Amino acid sequence: MSKTVSAYAATSATEPLARTTISRRDVGPHDVAFDIKFAGICHSDIHTVKAEWGAPNYPVVPGHEIAGVVTEVGSEVTRYQVGDRVGVGCFVDSCRECENCVAGLEQYCTGRGGMRGTYNSVGRDGSPTYGGYSQSIVVDENYVLRIPDAIALDAAAPLLCAGITLYSPLRNWKAGPGMSVAVVGLGGLGHMGVKLAAAMGAEVTVLSQSLKKMEDGLRLGASHYYATSDPDTFKKLRNSFDLILNTVSANLDLGAYLSLLKVDGTLVELGMPEHAMTVPPFPLAGMRRSLSGSMIGGIAETQEMLDFCAEHGVTPEIEVIDASYVNEAYERVLASDVRYRFVIDASTI
Amino acid sequence: MSKTVSAYAATSATEPLARTTISRRDVGPHDVAFDIKFAGICHSDIHTVKAEWGAPNYPVVPGHEIAGVVTEVGSEVTRYQVGDRVGVGCFVDSCRECENCVAGLEQYCTGRGGMRGTYNSVGRDGSPTYGGYSQSIVVDENYVLRIPDAIALDAAAPLLCAGITLYSPLRNWKAGPGMSVAVVGLGGLGHMGVKLAAAMGAEVTVLSQSLKKMEDGLRLGASHYYATSDPDTFKKLRNSFDLILNTVSANLDLGAYLSLLKVDGTLVELGMPEHAMTVPPFPLAGMRRSLSGSMIGGIAETQEMLDFCAEHGVTPEIEVIDASYVNEAYERVLASDVRYRFVIDASTI
Repeated sequence: MSKTVSAYAATSATEPLARTTISRRDVGPHDVAFDIKFAGICHSDIHTVKAEWGAPNYPVVPGHEIAGVVTEVGSEVTRYQVGDRVGVGCFVDSCRECENCVAGLEQYCTGRGGMRGTYNSVGRDGSPTYGGYSQSIVVDENYVLRIPDAIALDAAAPLLCAGITLYSPLRNWKAGPGMSVAVVGLGGLGHMGVKLAAAMGAEVTVLSQSLKKMEDGLRLGASHYYATSDPDTFKKLRNSFDLILNTVSANLDLGAYLSLLKVDGTLVELGMPEHAMTVPPFPLAGMRRSLSGSMIGGIAETQEMLDFCAEHGVTPEIEVIDASYVNEAYERVLASDVRYRFVIDASTI
Repeated sequence: MSKTVSAYAATSATEPLARTTISRRDVGPHDVAFDIKFAGICHSDIHTVKAEWGAPNYPVVPGHEIAGVVTEVGSEVTRYQVGDRVGVGCFVDSCRECENCVAGLEQYCTGRGGMRGTYNSVGRDGSPTYGGYSQSIVVDENYVLRIPDAIALDAAAPLLCAGITLYSPLRNWKAGPGMSVAVVGLGGLGHMGVKLAAAMGAEVTVLSQSLKKMEDGLRLGASHYYATSDPDTFKKLRNSFDLILNTVSANLDLGAYLSLLKVDGTLVELGMPEHAMTVPPFPLAGMRRSLSGSMIGGIAETQEMLDFCAEHGVTPEIEVIDASYVNEAYERVLASDVRYRFVIDASTI
């Protein structure tokens, strides 16, 4: 029998989120049901409910940074048991058969149905998916992550999106000792980038609009901090970085940023710009630089990231809030007024 | 004593090229002087003389695909002797000290003076450089290439720019068996890309505006040939290629082309677009694809390319012309009416 649970949902692009109820499916043979303890607020949640990435299917129950405790497992589930500390990130299923799924790159699934988002998507059974701003969730065990004991559940939540969004490109482009990594923007994503890149042994520079958060940046692990509002920054840092991770979704002067890369360096877009980017050809070809993009990570890599964070003591800086504060929290995210991630205490939903 | 030699030069953006004389420097201790036998016509020559890449320093003697025979060597020269078959490509000097020069990536020199172009640049001695549309040239031995006996001098000339421009990215992105490579545009650059990628063992697809040159493309080594004017091409080839080399300098719909790449695939810009490119973010981040650029190759890699071409029987398809035909040839290059490279017989200069 399906279960009715409380949730916070958006019913239109303009109405505030409000408490409602949703239905969670019966626990199938391969399913894990868990009580949600904490759910992070991601900028994507806001883009989606405000229909900035296309018209969503309302009601939207956002939330894809979900941490909780298992309450029930299906008859065939082998990897989890009641009481386990678990999490779910940005997707709850994929085709499991395409080249990318087989390679552990489920986030780039090209198969039937593609990557099935944790919310505003459609599950394998054809029903709409609802995210983490709710009391509980039922997910196939293959898309459930184990949260190591060393990480508190509230701090674990943002790792499932913000954490893996930065971890995956840092691994893919081989961040480590001897490598010079710049993180553009010190927000929810950026502050994880600084912590993770520093934990991997890279030399980390923050490129932020102003020096307002400089003290934080250095405390989090950056060795250098520059204001991008100062034109000297771009002269001084020319040909300096192996890797630049751009967490800012506003459209940047990409020619200027690309010029900061060494030969063969890569600028990776993580905060999805709203508009097409304008890229002058010479800063690319003139130094064999690349402009790339990356989107979260696969299931195996997300587990690897959680284990890495446990081992290196890497956790996000969070502000835990009651669910009733969510609309105010959205305003503050839009004003960049959060250090560095809001996490909803799901007991208040 | 410097030497006066005949050359073809442009004196303004609008006047046709005409015969003139230029001065070549004395042969210094490390210099190699050689009689130019053949000089290829590159689209860059036209961009430069027509001031499309900024105002050049007239007179411009174009030509950076130069093949000839050594007539004199400096007292300290060890690598070449009189009678050797040699060539010069797009640059005749660089700082020799920066990280990139030391790594054999002289084309990306970041040192004082940078990469010194074969024409429309300034040599180490402060005098303007003049290119291959001339009877002879004097170049430091470190920037001279050896042309293998198996390659005729007229066919060798275009390898020095068109050849290396394609060879370097194919090597850098590891083209070989099991790799699917698309070449956009079947012109001077593109036809070399097809031949080289096929010789490396990659599966080659040509993406051309129409099917007009299809027979040529397949003969040159492509396994597949598609018209980009047919929208079905973009549906059919979605997620197909590991590497796309774009040799077209017109601005393409990059979102459509990027979508043809597999996960982790790279589109490399080789024909420098005149305008900034418009890049939609999703085709990049949605499959961790990259947009990159590449510019010719270093000296060691250019020699490697020449040796590879000799070993694999790879040479460009050329039309040898008299120097007096150069202005007409330019018109035909602009009309894409050449299969596939004009080469000036320097004995007619």
